[in-house]
Amino acid sequence: MAIILKNSLKLNVFHNKLSPFLRRRQSETQTSSLLSLTTSSCGLIESTIKDKLQTKLKFGNTLNKIEITSSAVLEANDCTKGRKSVGVLGGGAWGTAIADLIGRNVAKHKHLFHEEVLFYVRDESLRLIIEKTRQNIRYLSAIKLPLNVRPVSSLSDAVSKSDVLIFVIPHQYLQDLCYAINDSISTRNPIGISLSKGLHIDSAGNLELNSQIIHRMLGIPVGVLSGANIAIEVAQRQYSEATLVNPLTNDKNCEELFRCLFECNLFRVSFCNDGPTVEMCGALKNIVAIGCGLVDGLGYGMNTKAAALSCGVREMIRFVEVFHPKYELSTFFQNCGIGDIIASSFGGRNRKVSEALIKSSKSIEMLEKQLLRGQKLQGPQTAHVVYQLLQNKQLLNEFPFFSAIHRICNRTMDPKDLIQAIKSSP
Amino acid sequence: MAIILKNSLKLNVFHNKLSPFLRRRQSETQTSSLLSLTTSSCGLIESTIKDKLQTKLKFGNTLNKIEITSSAVLEANDCTKGRKSVGVLGGGAWGTAIADLIGRNVAKHKHLFHEEVLFYVRDESLRLIIEKTRQNIRYLSAIKLPLNVRPVSSLSDAVSKSDVLIFVIPHQYLQDLCYAINDSISTRNPIGISLSKGLHIDSAGNLELNSQIIHRMLGIPVGVLSGANIAIEVAQRQYSEATLVNPLTNDKNCEELFRCLFECNLFRVSFCNDGPTVEMCGALKNIVAIGCGLVDGLGYGMNTKAAALSCGVREMIRFVEVFHPKYELSTFFQNCGIGDIIASSFGGRNRKVSEALIKSSKSIEMLEKQLLRGQKLQGPQTAHVVYQLLQNKQLLNEFPFFSAIHRICNRTMDPKDLIQAIKSSP
Repeated sequence: MAIILKNSLKLNVFHNKLSPFLRRRQSETQTSSLLSLTTSSCGLIESTIKDKLQTKLKFGNTLNKIEITSSAVLEANDCTKGRKSVGVLGGGAWGTAIADLIGRNVAKHKHLFHEEVLFYVRDESLRLIIEKTRQNIRYLSAIKLPLNVRPVSSLSDAVSKSDVLIFVIPHQYLQDLCYAINDSISTRNPIGISLSKGLHIDSAGNLELNSQIIHRMLGIPVGVLSGANIAIEVAQRQYSEATLVNPLTNDKNCEELFRCLFECNLFRVSFCNDGPTVEMCGALKNIVAIGCGLVDGLGYGMNTKAAALSCGVREMIRFVEVFHPKYELSTFFQNCGIGDIIASSFGGRNRKVSEALIKSSKSIEMLEKQLLRGQKLQGPQTAHVVYQLLQNKQLLNEFPFFSAIHRICNRTMDPKDLIQAIKSSP
Repeated sequence: MAIILKNSLKLNVFHNKLSPFLRRRQSETQTSSLLSLTTSSCGLIESTIKDKLQTKLKFGNTLNKIEITSSAVLEANDCTKGRKSVGVLGGGAWGTAIADLIGRNVAKHKHLFHEEVLFYVRDESLRLIIEKTRQNIRYLSAIKLPLNVRPVSSLSDAVSKSDVLIFVIPHQYLQDLCYAINDSISTRNPIGISLSKGLHIDSAGNLELNSQIIHRMLGIPVGVLSGANIAIEVAQRQYSEATLVNPLTNDKNCEELFRCLFECNLFRVSFCNDGPTVEMCGALKNIVAIGCGLVDGLGYGMNTKAAALSCGVREMIRFVEVFHPKYELSTFFQNCGIGDIIASSFGGRNRKVSEALIKSSKSIEMLEKQLLRGQKLQGPQTAHVVYQLLQNKQLLNEFPFFSAIHRICNRTMDPKDLIQAIKSSP
């Protein structure tokens, strides 16, 4: 595929703003007055450059042109060209369950994928055990991983050999991971899918999503998978669903590739183009789950929990309205919305720890260590980030439920006052 | 207040189509060429006649005029004029809990309400026990009713003395009740609020809601109260919320009247003008609850339940789209929507009986008798009505989840096939 940028007066600016990955690509092929990028497949550079040009950089009209030959367009649309290697980054419960699912799926779709799935597990002792027993005895001992899932301890190996990168680490480690793998990114135009849940504040004080961090730091297109997916239940092959955001919007070949990667008889994916809402739902639902756990811990019944949950959902919607005004309300009715909210509010780890918070004087960090055996809570950190973002915009008054959850988590508010917060929510 | 209908060439047609209540009013004041209705308060006749003229009857332009003096308009808007007597029709668990709530509220708002609440209990032996012990030992023994709630056995007494009628009987008995009280309706322009949950098919094969039946048969304006309100929890004063549809849309005095009637520190009401959606949510959520009970009974976990629930909610929305195209999607995020769906799917009687259906070969009617001690299930009947309505419109294929619930309830489908129905739902 050839992408030609003509009339590049501001080429240096463009060059410096490109991600390290694209800079490498560019240097290989740059000419004096014509930048021509040649690569083997996927149109990934095309979409990345378009994105950079159209959203990140303010070029004059002269540079903002991309010429692509018609054969290149055809090729660019065929993201399934060539068999893909898949790497799963993260050896927690959900990482293990998804490695298991993907391991089985790539074996069924050998025309699309290399059969070996690289499974990065940070802790070498755990990796050795998984390699030997096929079981993640620490986080998901109930299943044996298929033989084609290979646990690896070298992050750069896992990354450099993968065309599809599944990010499934706690969101608080995401930036460090991206920094660490920046130089290992495959030269074969990888695509990322974020399964991490959480929100960030960028250096300018604005909201940044996991997929945006990966895209910013690695320069690769990133999709999202999110839904009511309690890891052990997916691993036990109980029927589950998820919402999938195609990294290359409207690219049907890419959609089909990812459907084959994730979907099976007992795991159904539905596609959604409203990526930011899908991702925000995945993060914000953990705040709602904390609220529901608090209601449980306070000894209230289903009416109060339903009031807390529907109040929480309405604050979720208002939050998305503020930070992503082009959202679709219907996204909240996908599995990533109402489905995930319910599963987390009745069954997840955030609910569990916050219920314990009522009955204990320990800090939430201590309870996390005690109850989750090394797994990380996303809810309290997300509540903190949301609190800061709303504070920056002087909107805390309009989000009494979200605000209360943060203040209860950091022990500056009596949990009993949660009911008052629910009542005062618009 | 005076309402004057001029130029009534088709007066006889109009006269015959009016409800018995309005016919009485009309006969009292009719003159040869001018129909003048005089009444004391509330503008109820105004709204009822307007409704009849504008939506039910197809008159010529000449008759379709209502002249109201400006003082009458002022008076018509003041629906709080005069202290109101409240009657609660229905002695089940929810009827008892709401009689308790209303009993306490009218005592707090003596300027708006007569202090005595008439509580119609059909079964005389139960009524006597309630009168003596203040406890509904059959359906809600956990609380003692306040002394100002007077259980009565005469339906006509309860109805004729009430300005506000709370309909809280199983929906399958609603038409019989309306027929029975048609001649007892107060001459003081009562207002109704429906708390019943369920759907009906009218004589033309179309969907008819509880509030529409009451309005059609009694000629009174009818609002709706619906939400995550498990009776025992409301009675135990656990914090609960509900959505309230004002019988006189946009009449702020009427809104305030009903807020005072229902709201207290631990029961919050929010108003919503999208009445048909509120009412359909209250009925359809019982089908979703059956689906969730089946998932529980089949031994699946939270992921599958979340998939069933979100699939059910999407079919609810599509159903409302078909039968009430002017719906507001946001109504589903009120307590009457997502809140009630959750409470019913995790805690209600429909969930309980359908879970038992999996583990038993008994019919759903037998399980209802065995498990609910005389209380009625709304879910299976609602699923049946929905099935018929969709069949009439040849839309069953688009509602595989709803269709499956009906067929599982009448034992013509294996419950295990529910998962396939969820998977095939659009």
